[in-house]
Amino acid sequence: MQKFMDEDFLLKTDTAKHLFHTYAEKLPIYDYHCHISPKEIWENKSYENITQVWLYGDHYKWRIMRAVGIDEKYITGDSTDYEKFEAYAKALSLSIGNPLYHWSHLELRRYFGVDEILSEKTAPIIWEKANAALKNLPCRKLIEMSNVALIATTDDPIDSLEYHKLIREEGAMKTKVVPAFRPDKAVDPARADFAEYMGKLGEVCGITIQTIADLKNALEQRIQFFHENGSRVSDHALDYVPFVPATETEVNVVLAKALLSQPITSLERDQFRTYIIKFLAAEYNKRDWVMQWHLASIRDNNKRLYNSLGVDVGNDAILDVHLAKGLAGLLNACAEDDQLPKTILYSLNPNDNYTLMTVGGCFQGGGIPGKIQLGSAWWFNDHIDGMTAQMRAVANVGVLGKFIGMLTDSRSFLSYFRHEYFRRIACNLIGEWVENGEYPNDEDMLKTIVEGICYYNAVEYFGIEL
Amino acid sequence: MQKFMDEDFLLKTDTAKHLFHTYAEKLPIYDYHCHISPKEIWENKSYENITQVWLYGDHYKWRIMRAVGIDEKYITGDSTDYEKFEAYAKALSLSIGNPLYHWSHLELRRYFGVDEILSEKTAPIIWEKANAALKNLPCRKLIEMSNVALIATTDDPIDSLEYHKLIREEGAMKTKVVPAFRPDKAVDPARADFAEYMGKLGEVCGITIQTIADLKNALEQRIQFFHENGSRVSDHALDYVPFVPATETEVNVVLAKALLSQPITSLERDQFRTYIIKFLAAEYNKRDWVMQWHLASIRDNNKRLYNSLGVDVGNDAILDVHLAKGLAGLLNACAEDDQLPKTILYSLNPNDNYTLMTVGGCFQGGGIPGKIQLGSAWWFNDHIDGMTAQMRAVANVGVLGKFIGMLTDSRSFLSYFRHEYFRRIACNLIGEWVENGEYPNDEDMLKTIVEGICYYNAVEYFGIEL
Amino acid sequence: MQKFMDEDFLLKTDTAKHLFHTYAEKLPIYDYHCHISPKEIWENKSYENITQVWLYGDHYKWRIMRAVGIDEKYITGDSTDYEKFEAYAKALSLSIGNPLYHWSHLELRRYFGVDEILSEKTAPIIWEKANAALKNLPCRKLIEMSNVALIATTDDPIDSLEYHKLIREEGAMKTKVVPAFRPDKAVDPARADFAEYMGKLGEVCGITIQTIADLKNALEQRIQFFHENGSRVSDHALDYVPFVPATETEVNVVLAKALLSQPITSLERDQFRTYIIKFLAAEYNKRDWVMQWHLASIRDNNKRLYNSLGVDVGNDAILDVHLAKGLAGLLNACAEDDQLPKTILYSLNPNDNYTLMTVGGCFQGGGIPGKIQLGSAWWFNDHIDGMTAQMRAVANVGVLGKFIGMLTDSRSFLSYFRHEYFRRIACNLIGEWVENGEYPNDEDMLKTIVEGICYYNAVEYFGIEL
Repeated sequence: MQKFMDEDFLLKTDTAKHLFHTYAEKLPIYDYHCHISPKEIWENKSYENITQVWLYGDHYKWRIMRAVGIDEKYITGDSTDYEKFEAYAKALSLSIGNPLYHWSHLELRRYFGVDEILSEKTAPIIWEKANAALKNLPCRKLIEMSNVALIATTDDPIDSLEYHKLIREEGAMKTKVVPAFRPDKAVDPARADFAEYMGKLGEVCGITIQTIADLKNALEQRIQFFHENGSRVSDHALDYVPFVPATETEVNVVLAKALLSQPITSLERDQFRTYIIKFLAAEYNKRDWVMQWHLASIRDNNKRLYNSLGVDVGNDAILDVHLAKGLAGLLNACAEDDQLPKTILYSLNPNDNYTLMTVGGCFQGGGIPGKIQLGSAWWFNDHIDGMTAQMRAVANVGVLGKFIGMLTDSRSFLSYFRHEYFRRIACNLIGEWVENGEYPNDEDMLKTIVEGICYYNAVEYFGIEL
Repeated sequence: MQKFMDEDFLLKTDTAKHLFHTYAEKLPIYDYHCHISPKEIWENKSYENITQVWLYGDHYKWRIMRAVGIDEKYITGDSTDYEKFEAYAKALSLSIGNPLYHWSHLELRRYFGVDEILSEKTAPIIWEKANAALKNLPCRKLIEMSNVALIATTDDPIDSLEYHKLIREEGAMKTKVVPAFRPDKAVDPARADFAEYMGKLGEVCGITIQTIADLKNALEQRIQFFHENGSRVSDHALDYVPFVPATETEVNVVLAKALLSQPITSLERDQFRTYIIKFLAAEYNKRDWVMQWHLASIRDNNKRLYNSLGVDVGNDAILDVHLAKGLAGLLNACAEDDQLPKTILYSLNPNDNYTLMTVGGCFQGGGIPGKIQLGSAWWFNDHIDGMTAQMRAVANVGVLGKFIGMLTDSRSFLSYFRHEYFRRIACNLIGEWVENGEYPNDEDMLKTIVEGICYYNAVEYFGIEL
Repeated sequence: MQKFMDEDFLLKTDTAKHLFHTYAEKLPIYDYHCHISPKEIWENKSYENITQVWLYGDHYKWRIMRAVGIDEKYITGDSTDYEKFEAYAKALSLSIGNPLYHWSHLELRRYFGVDEILSEKTAPIIWEKANAALKNLPCRKLIEMSNVALIATTDDPIDSLEYHKLIREEGAMKTKVVPAFRPDKAVDPARADFAEYMGKLGEVCGITIQTIADLKNALEQRIQFFHENGSRVSDHALDYVPFVPATETEVNVVLAKALLSQPITSLERDQFRTYIIKFLAAEYNKRDWVMQWHLASIRDNNKRLYNSLGVDVGNDAILDVHLAKGLAGLLNACAEDDQLPKTILYSLNPNDNYTLMTVGGCFQGGGIPGKIQLGSAWWFNDHIDGMTAQMRAVANVGVLGKFIGMLTDSRSFLSYFRHEYFRRIACNLIGEWVENGEYPNDEDMLKTIVEGICYYNAVEYFGIEL
């Protein structure tokens, strides 16, 4: 029996251990997609107790707490922080096989020096130890401990990026912090806040947005502004990939209705989205940016929960939807004009791995290594099975050696050890192939592949100066 | 090489063996969903030969017999019982990897004391041995041998439950036998027998069903009647989860058409189903019942087979259909009024595991442990791969420690050893995590989790006094 | 650590090794579906260098070359053959886990006697060795070295089958070479070339095709012609299974529009396809042919690539589409008239395995062993994971012992060692079950099952005299 989460955690063969400890473990972290706050980085936020940094806002944890039958009072309610911590400890003990079991203990060990196993029984002592350690752990210290080379946050086009500027001008951090462009509010004319948002976007740009030409003008301005502030990556959240080609005239009609908050049909919505995303893709491509599409989520499902707590509270799920036709259509529409940027495709539905890989594979080329990527296992797939399935799909129908690897996608400064988790899983997979005689035990190639997946492929792909 | 199906069958690690033999093996069976006949239990049905108890009505076995090329005469035709038994033996030998191979041998060993491996060669001697043993094995004896704490049968709302009453009043069985409420015929206005069924339902309730109010009145009466007869669980078979909200007026129109056997559109069908299921859910919730949804089957596909043999003859299959939106919509419609009962979601399509888990996860809460459950691997998924995949999905995005575990879903009194099969698979999975250092070797927690999944979680969840 | 691709490659247990080396390894190859050219067989085509036989036309290899960032010049462009070979070597080294890694090395070893591992470094020496060996390896020699009992090519209904006749009349090959009937161009009235094709088909048959009766007459003639030339198998490529029953009158209207190259609606297309496929199925069944349906591909997605290189250039992908209803409908339509032929169902989408198996299972019977087959893992699924998943699906819900096994589906004369790859994987899977005590260590039955899957089941199923 292997000891619980020892130094060879998840590494089942000698080759896996060798690859992890020799190559993967030591590399910096390139966190090209996350949701942490540049303001908190700038202010070097600190925390009074582990509940604040660990449970506030962590909807992964909230879900397992609800699932074991813990009252909402101890999850998001008015109980004390310690009560919440204890409630989580109780839920976690039952969550055998859940990645939270591993993440939580990795975080306790790596950041707080806590070696005990968290349970109702050990909750009091861990609470004391972790809180003591936390006194010297403001968020910049957490980032530094994690050896993070780059952080790309996720930002709205109208964002002033003031905290990014302050961090940059200060020049004190070893970690490069850059913004990412997330124009969801400008892309979907069926959103309740679309008209209002057009007002704000126009204001930031000194334009009154009345036509598609105005909107394109505004978006281009903001992309350029993001570019000047170091951004080289965008991100889109989409239920599915829309593809309904339309003329500018047709899309102008949709925009006019949306600006008046009139109802938009599904067809009109997809005409608009197709048109605008294609436009944005060309702008990204012009600047050698990376475009990310996050697909197949269905959000805020429980309206009572939404009404009481708002968004991002453990109330989202995996959508089942057909992707291949829209995906092939929209990628092609971009590629036909030779304006398809480097693109990362993520689906929340693990059934989509092979569809995304094979459709994406038709658009590889132009001499760009791994131009179209299957994004690292995302959110509900961010566990041993999900990450392994994602990498096996990449390997089976593509080139794993050019995979750009892991990101945290997290709102927390404690999530960097998900990269360690990923690297262990990747090294274990590769080690297994070598041990089984399925790939030669060629040290140079294995080093190239492992270091590529863990770090260097992303550095090359995003092309951001570090 | 491990001996074929020895005492450590499917248990690959020492921890797995320990967990199974120390905890799982000895627990009673809580069979909360099956299709056995209360009449047969009451009458303590006995059998002349193994074909009668083993092959009559077992469409799992019929399918593999057809697949190897056995003529229908030896499956459901007029051959002798021995010829059928021999034909099955021949088919089984070729069915390497099929759960029937394991179930059949578990049943031969546990009930009939037959240790031989079934094949064409051994068919004669096993026929003799099994038939001899069967003389002393009426169905109540089979139940007793299986240490069954509870059986929930599946019953139509108009059922008199007379056999349930007789069994209860007799008080001779250690096993609690309760009905489950399956109102499929009242839920789907597009069924050919809908109008006729409304007549029967009305008759049982002393009502002429003409309006939705009448139908609701009738259904509420029958739920209360089932409740008084010990039922705490309902069951719905649905192709997909309908969700089209409609007013009572609109649904009254659909009912009026259906009572006249007029054609019903898809939209009308889903309006009606949405309305009625939401009503039923509230009634279940009021009485603290559990609601089960069995999704994504497509039935009676081969019309020649259906015309000659009827339903449940090995003529059903897995439907591929999108579930997330309807599921989220209908669960939310129930939850918005705080009338969502405890719910178990089963899909026949193994691709749906993660969708059901994550949509269901949005409706966990209210302090009920495991309120929304992903049902145990069902029917075409009831094998090592399917059960393992179901439990890994529960673990990866939920809390396996609160899973309510296995049921037989069977028409046979010999199926209880599917619980043994399940328990071996569950202990093996948990043992593997512990041996790999992915969960601590904490005896108390492992006992709690294993015993919970095998028995106690279901006892707590259904809340039926034993 | 197992040596890279040694004699026990992919065989993890003693039983697996025994089964492979004793039974599977020695059997001839029955390649019942491929795309090699009968003309090239007749002419005994030879090659100047390994690039010609290995990289020309191999779009699997092109995809990984594009994915690593190799310029199209070195893939399909005007670079030298050696430059292409070297570029592939570079791409391959990064393709850990991809079946091409194994196929390429199997081919180098088995045909060219090259034991070195291909990489940028070894490319020059392997280029020399392979080209030297190739001097004595015209395509008939490659076939002979591979111990191929049967090759079924894929041919258009209007094909004269002249090369098949020449090969037959010559009588020099030990391998039986037969045509397969692929009437895609006659089945889909929405194809741009449909009207033109009707002209050609009519011409071949001495008919002017104006009505459905004419078309049926022509198709029947060609099926009979193929039958007389040894064909016993057909093949259909379909995005999904259409099922919209229509009268001959209705379909005549669709045909009339299609002959005038007028636009065809989706509904009309599916009416026509349903009608014609049902007709063809009956014709196949009459002659005891096997019908193959290849489902769920989406082709020529990148129009720039299509415009520059045409079809079959690595520009196809997996389609996600619902299959169950159409599949059940069309199979039933054939079966209702007792005219359903033996049928092999392939989906390019690995999510469809269980749907195809269970829908197909409803149509097993009539005393034909394995009448409905789940086709061997196809194209993007043709790797260890995909083949294992396909066989586990067959085993879990069907009878693996009646599976007809592997085919190459290849355009290359070097692909026969994919059968070796498959056999290793099959023996490993079966060996694992035996070693785990999940199937008895019964030598006779294991021999029957292994030899059946590798060879004899296909021989029996197709019923072609060898």
